[in-house]
Amino acid sequence: MTIRAAEIAKKIGAELVGDPDKLISGVATLLEAGEEDVTFLTNPAYRKHLATTRAAAVILAQPPEGGEGTYFVSSDPRRAFVEALRLFFPAPPPPAPGVHPSAVVGENVQLAEGVSVGPGCVIENGVSIGKGTVLRAQVFVGRDVVIGESCLFHSRVSIREGCQIGNRVVIQDGAVIGSDGFGFAPGDEGYATIPQVGIVVLEDDVDVGANTTIDRATLTRTVIRRGVKLDNLIQIAHNVEVGEQTVMAAQVGIAGSTKVGSHSMLGGQVGVAGHIELSDGLVIAAQSGIVSNPKDVEPVNGMRVVGGTPARAIQNWRRIEASLSRLPELFKRVRKLEDQK
Amino acid sequence: MTIRAAEIAKKIGAELVGDPDKLISGVATLLEAGEEDVTFLTNPAYRKHLATTRAAAVILAQPPEGGEGTYFVSSDPRRAFVEALRLFFPAPPPPAPGVHPSAVVGENVQLAEGVSVGPGCVIENGVSIGKGTVLRAQVFVGRDVVIGESCLFHSRVSIREGCQIGNRVVIQDGAVIGSDGFGFAPGDEGYATIPQVGIVVLEDDVDVGANTTIDRATLTRTVIRRGVKLDNLIQIAHNVEVGEQTVMAAQVGIAGSTKVGSHSMLGGQVGVAGHIELSDGLVIAAQSGIVSNPKDVEPVNGMRVVGGTPARAIQNWRRIEASLSRLPELFKRVRKLEDQK
Amino acid sequence: MTIRAAEIAKKIGAELVGDPDKLISGVATLLEAGEEDVTFLTNPAYRKHLATTRAAAVILAQPPEGGEGTYFVSSDPRRAFVEALRLFFPAPPPPAPGVHPSAVVGENVQLAEGVSVGPGCVIENGVSIGKGTVLRAQVFVGRDVVIGESCLFHSRVSIREGCQIGNRVVIQDGAVIGSDGFGFAPGDEGYATIPQVGIVVLEDDVDVGANTTIDRATLTRTVIRRGVKLDNLIQIAHNVEVGEQTVMAAQVGIAGSTKVGSHSMLGGQVGVAGHIELSDGLVIAAQSGIVSNPKDVEPVNGMRVVGGTPARAIQNWRRIEASLSRLPELFKRVRKLEDQK
Repeated sequence: MTIRAAEIAKKIGAELVGDPDKLISGVATLLEAGEEDVTFLTNPAYRKHLATTRAAAVILAQPPEGGEGTYFVSSDPRRAFVEALRLFFPAPPPPAPGVHPSAVVGENVQLAEGVSVGPGCVIENGVSIGKGTVLRAQVFVGRDVVIGESCLFHSRVSIREGCQIGNRVVIQDGAVIGSDGFGFAPGDEGYATIPQVGIVVLEDDVDVGANTTIDRATLTRTVIRRGVKLDNLIQIAHNVEVGEQTVMAAQVGIAGSTKVGSHSMLGGQVGVAGHIELSDGLVIAAQSGIVSNPKDVEPVNGMRVVGGTPARAIQNWRRIEASLSRLPELFKRVRKLEDQK
Repeated sequence: MTIRAAEIAKKIGAELVGDPDKLISGVATLLEAGEEDVTFLTNPAYRKHLATTRAAAVILAQPPEGGEGTYFVSSDPRRAFVEALRLFFPAPPPPAPGVHPSAVVGENVQLAEGVSVGPGCVIENGVSIGKGTVLRAQVFVGRDVVIGESCLFHSRVSIREGCQIGNRVVIQDGAVIGSDGFGFAPGDEGYATIPQVGIVVLEDDVDVGANTTIDRATLTRTVIRRGVKLDNLIQIAHNVEVGEQTVMAAQVGIAGSTKVGSHSMLGGQVGVAGHIELSDGLVIAAQSGIVSNPKDVEPVNGMRVVGGTPARAIQNWRRIEASLSRLPELFKRVRKLEDQK
Repeated sequence: MTIRAAEIAKKIGAELVGDPDKLISGVATLLEAGEEDVTFLTNPAYRKHLATTRAAAVILAQPPEGGEGTYFVSSDPRRAFVEALRLFFPAPPPPAPGVHPSAVVGENVQLAEGVSVGPGCVIENGVSIGKGTVLRAQVFVGRDVVIGESCLFHSRVSIREGCQIGNRVVIQDGAVIGSDGFGFAPGDEGYATIPQVGIVVLEDDVDVGANTTIDRATLTRTVIRRGVKLDNLIQIAHNVEVGEQTVMAAQVGIAGSTKVGSHSMLGGQVGVAGHIELSDGLVIAAQSGIVSNPKDVEPVNGMRVVGGTPARAIQNWRRIEASLSRLPELFKRVRKLEDQK
């Protein structure tokens, strides 16, 4: 597929600066682009490569001064880049609707128009799946699960009994939704299992990463609100609620009954203790340990950014980290002061 | 199902205070209970909600003074709550015994009475499975595995060749038991794989969380003792031994050949180094890093509680954490003292 | 199988000290060996057990002075031990070539000589698999994947569309290769998904642990170079490159677009930030957080070893950790100095 620059500008919603007749046939990074590729600049650290890229054109927020190349100028170059990707890499056609002969489908299962149930899938009794949803292969859907429209579950996803999934939910391979919460009552003869009779609710437009696990509630609902994006290998314990549009990087763990606010960002490997409630709009640095809702943190550029264990305002934490390097030396200085007495 | 309070008290082993004829039809949390629900109070932080709950009755250790409601009083309210849950949410009937036609079962496989092998399961040669055990769906059981009675393996569990599973073992979806231990011998031409010819033993009443991995021993046995409870996404390396009745929260990692004591509790994301032996009855705070068996830790309320990296008595660690906040300021104070010389 | 010591010495490439006619029938640890077992000593901490082991012979680098036993002396006892293991525990015969009747194989799939596709596997269209590769059971292989020779994929591995796997690659149960990278562009109506159209490349002799996840690149390739060994539950994000012969312990997380050097060793639960480039030959202590390539770290015994967050030379980090214990006391000492003014 080869497209004129003028047409691309229109399709990705950007302003064209340069040659409208430039022919473009692909998308690539600044370093790897060839003479028929469009590339993009969203990370300022890569701006230096503008001078040497072989790309036919660059999507960016501001063309270089005196630059002679062809540019797609956008106030949101990341979005424009997404549009360019969709143009050159259109989503593959959905698999043919229907149930693969190797899939096992229980009784009283309702499959709406366009649903595709791939090879090796197992669907228990009483399940309902909305229009156009695709179960790719070897997916497990427990009894009485309700799944919305236009979802995509990759290979080996498990949705346990009774859980409720919204529309346009995408789940990567191996993720588990609705495993039993970790609830045991200690007693004289060891731990007794507390039955976990609640469910998990994933609202619309949620994304779940590969091998991530989300436990069902003890009695009620573990809820992942609209638009939440979860990366790989994340643990969400029973009775947790995650507010809408919150994003978590890989290997985060949220302990039971905690409420994570909306519009927040959690870095990789962050741990959040159980039974606490976090504010909206929190940004938590990678590997931090959150044991209570951080207080007295002033917004920096509109975000309340915290780090460390227990978490503090990120600038305070960075200062502490820096001073640690000089800690052994500080002991010597204090010793010297004492000796001077 | 609607039950009189007097009958519930008898069935859950609690003392009734209040109206014996109160009708109860469900279990719910303090905040969500309706007028026919029984609720429970086990976490003192929620005691304030006693005044406003709409619940018909409350399971607790001590009724409020002057309270007019109906109470189930128990010295172990968590246990009584478990009994109430079992009353109102009886376990679903086990699936019909037998082998689903889509399952693949090898030669010389012994399935005792009542065993259920669900759709998509694969059982290799020489496997033996005890009475009443349920493999829900898409479970993999490698050759010569021995599984006890009354186990429940949820979807997509893998039990690799030769491993031994006790009775009443419950394994959540996607967990892997018996993957090859991580053993490589460095050499001139890269790493050579050290064959991992040992097994994993899960004793009776072990619970394993979703997507948790337990590696087989190099030569002998990785052993998880009776009553151990493992949460999701935990890593147990080769040759590890975990003592009985020990509980680990999600994302804990135990390195190779380490012995974790019995009756211990490991918080989420704890890491334990290899080739060490920990005491019984240790409580390890979340995210701690354990590089040796903590010494000189006095029991607090009967538990030896440690935290941090390397782990120290928790009260010492909390003191260190608190003092970190004032560390940058300490540098200034020392500078001032030096300037005054 | 019983073998004379003289013959074993020849087969494992070690020098025999002691009785050449000693009969040996198995391999066991120092503590568990019986009178017909060969054992091994590679960890100096276990040297004290030499005096009491019942083993017929010991593989080691240096026999004890005045020892009367039988020894296999090798400059690389770990390698000699691997050879002994291979002698007494030969790899099981590969499964019979062919496609199990329960497997589902798409169109235009090329299976070379000796390929074994086990029960419950799903292979999409256009896949190519090289000589002697074994897919054990319930493996998923997406469209147009290319897999080399002599690979072994254990149960429930997923290889997503378009990925490229070299020769002799071993993947443990439940691992996911090629899940979509975590890429979302924030906007007014929530996050838009950035299509992930790149792939994952695993070069020759790579090992991947159970339930580990490796994301596909946005546009290009996530690359795991020759001889890399990854343990369980590791997260490799999109566009990462891992240099050859690098080893990572369990639960490590590498954020997007980062380059990890060759011949490096990452301890368990290490986190590495995105968009950075690490040197070759780096050793990173468990649980460390790497936010930039560690500078000014002198090699110790030929390795550049770092630890902590942010990572520093390990000896500096150990000194800081040690001094933390005395930090609360330091505050008191400074207070006292101030009071003396």
